[in-house]
Amino acid sequence: MSSPAALDWSADNCTIGRTLDLIGDRWTFLVLREVFNGIRRFDDLTVRTAIPRTVLTDRLRRLVDAGVLRKEPYREPGTRSRMEYRLTEKGLDLYPVLLALQTWGDRYLADPEGAPIEFAHRGCEAKVQLVMRCEAGHELKRVRDVTGRPGPSARRRVA
Amino acid sequence: MSSPAALDWSADNCTIGRTLDLIGDRWTFLVLREVFNGIRRFDDLTVRTAIPRTVLTDRLRRLVDAGVLRKEPYREPGTRSRMEYRLTEKGLDLYPVLLALQTWGDRYLADPEGAPIEFAHRGCEAKVQLVMRCEAGHELKRVRDVTGRPGPSARRRVA
Repeated sequence: MSSPAALDWSADNCTIGRTLDLIGDRWTFLVLREVFNGIRRFDDLTVRTAIPRTVLTDRLRRLVDAGVLRKEPYREPGTRSRMEYRLTEKGLDLYPVLLALQTWGDRYLADPEGAPIEFAHRGCEAKVQLVMRCEAGHELKRVRDVTGRPGPSARRRVA
Repeated sequence: MSSPAALDWSADNCTIGRTLDLIGDRWTFLVLREVFNGIRRFDDLTVRTAIPRTVLTDRLRRLVDAGVLRKEPYREPGTRSRMEYRLTEKGLDLYPVLLALQTWGDRYLADPEGAPIEFAHRGCEAKVQLVMRCEAGHELKRVRDVTGRPGPSARRRVA
């Protein structure tokens, strides 16, 4: 049997790998989930995620450094000014990742009653889903309809 | 300012959280990436990912236990029978997660020349992308067009 073609190519500049370097740990995904849910403040984030405070501080700092979140000052009456965390455009563009995780989780890991949260089209209220489509407009139903090929930055693997 | 609505609800049965319990670490995502790339054998996986062998053994076992991968025996001439790892239907359904990670990575973290790998529609060769669409058929261009609401298994948070 011949080797799989992927073995000929380097994975060093893989953009999935780089994305995971930024957001690829469980806590970071949970922080993103919450910020997409409208939770923006440190204490609220600890309530919803049970992340240890030192870990949360670290993950928020990384996401700010990466340009995924930005800090915005706010002040409650009678208290000092604090920071809340909002998604940048770069952060908002991560939404399909969360939606894909949730779609799979709803299919395979939800309670018997169904999903704990649903995402709908604002206005028409119909549920939102992810669809694979090619640039020629064909909808792809199965992974087997997708094929990989080396892109412009593909590099041969050096053994 | 009132509290964010999400604070009223429990995140305990969140399907994103459960999905991350299964696949939410960097190594596991990389294993899945490789298996989707056609890499099925232990030694080939170590070549492409640089995962320590003990970690790879653990991650493969977890993915098999979760029903995401299945083991299939193979034998090279003159060697003992070994196992290779293939995606189950449940595993194949994770493809949008990988595609979403890659789409984001290609936009923000690729080398200047572009993506290292491209995914295309088998047959027509046009590039594949993820699209958000509601069940009524409207395409959603922006996250702000999406709204969350409690689903059938939503539970009030107990303070």
